Amino acid sequence: MARIAGSSGPRTEEAIRRAGLSLITTHGYAAMSLRQLAAMVGIQQGSLYNYFRNKQEFLFDLIRSHMQDLHAALEQALLPEGSAAERLTRFVEFHVAYHIERSQEVFICYSELRSLEPENLTAVVAMRRDYERRLSDILEAGRESGEFRLADVRMATLAILAMLSGICNWYRPDGRLSKEAVSRTFTGMVLALAQGGADPAALPQPANLNRLAARRQ
Amino acid sequence: MARIAGSSGPRTEEAIRRAGLSLITTHGYAAMSLRQLAAMVGIQQGSLYNYFRNKQEFLFDLIRSHMQDLHAALEQALLPEGSAAERLTRFVEFHVAYHIERSQEVFICYSELRSLEPENLTAVVAMRRDYERRLSDILEAGRESGEFRLADVRMATLAILAMLSGICNWYRPDGRLSKEAVSRTFTGMVLALAQGGADPAALPQPANLNRLAARRQ
Repeated sequence: MARIAGSSGPRTEEAIRRAGLSLITTHGYAAMSLRQLAAMVGIQQGSLYNYFRNKQEFLFDLIRSHMQDLHAALEQALLPEGSAAERLTRFVEFHVAYHIERSQEVFICYSELRSLEPENLTAVVAMRRDYERRLSDILEAGRESGEFRLADVRMATLAILAMLSGICNWYRPDGRLSKEAVSRTFTGMVLALAQGGADPAALPQPANLNRLAARRQ
Repeated sequence: MARIAGSSGPRTEEAIRRAGLSLITTHGYAAMSLRQLAAMVGIQQGSLYNYFRNKQEFLFDLIRSHMQDLHAALEQALLPEGSAAERLTRFVEFHVAYHIERSQEVFICYSELRSLEPENLTAVVAMRRDYERRLSDILEAGRESGEFRLADVRMATLAILAMLSGICNWYRPDGRLSKEAVSRTFTGMVLALAQGGADPAALPQPANLNRLAARRQ
């Protein structure tokens, strides 16, 4: 959020952001009122307009700034060289650590795409594509070098991101698993997925499945 | 939904269900009003109470009936015997086909868990655990038989379900990929994930990553 004029500063801005994340996560964007938001921060509703022009801009800012932070952090984290397996490992470690810390933003970035106006949605989808491309590039490099065997890099990219982001839905910091254990196990699964094959000829054939199913009768 | 009394029957019930799915998918549960719902179906608001007692019961019924249908269809689809790879293949084919057809329900079952009252949430979480268990059982059997190498069956279960359900977020029936192509590619990736390893000793070590990162300076 860009502060527009005469506000009590970055602390209020951050408080609005946090309150908005919490309200949208709990009730959804459409059900959040600016009255609620102002009350939660402890300011007058009119003061909100020092920070954003309207509710849509507020949502767009939340999502865009999350994506911008994510991109900047990824740039710092990625390995500029190394084997595809090493680069993929680093990507997974980064993605898991970052997303576990920001599960509210991740939830909103997924569930409230529906609430973005078309122009804003287009911008967010483009940012997401950029992020996906960093992973696709690693997978493609691994396929070219023979390290990875993947039938479809685009689908593999989406599969890996879904399985990693899904951690946000069940991971609890006070649960049985440390962040490190989760990261390590998921790294192993992603590498297995990338290295392990996907040779269609090696899959059980539908004919076999039908034969087995027929035995049930 | 159980029809309570004197209604115009199952067709209205189905129309309410479809309208509710659409409104909740578009605006979220908290923002959906029963006035909107009745208007969309073309009935009086009061008539809704022939079908459910309140908005919470309506949401719970939507989610519960989706889960019940899913379970019943899974029972029909699963292979009672065969190798773990064959059984896993069948599970993936089933899950992908079923979820692509019902992407609205899948979205709501994920995004509106927050809106369920505690007792209803407990019931839905238990149903979801039952479903997950069917996959865990296959993975566990494969681990015991030596077909699969998995560091953690629970995490593998959640990873596979997240990557398969994620298809709902990007799959378009009029896009470049047929349902069969998606199903086949994801089956390959899931089998690779399960069979391929996850041997922690085989992963790039953090020390290597740090060494590589240091080269950037």
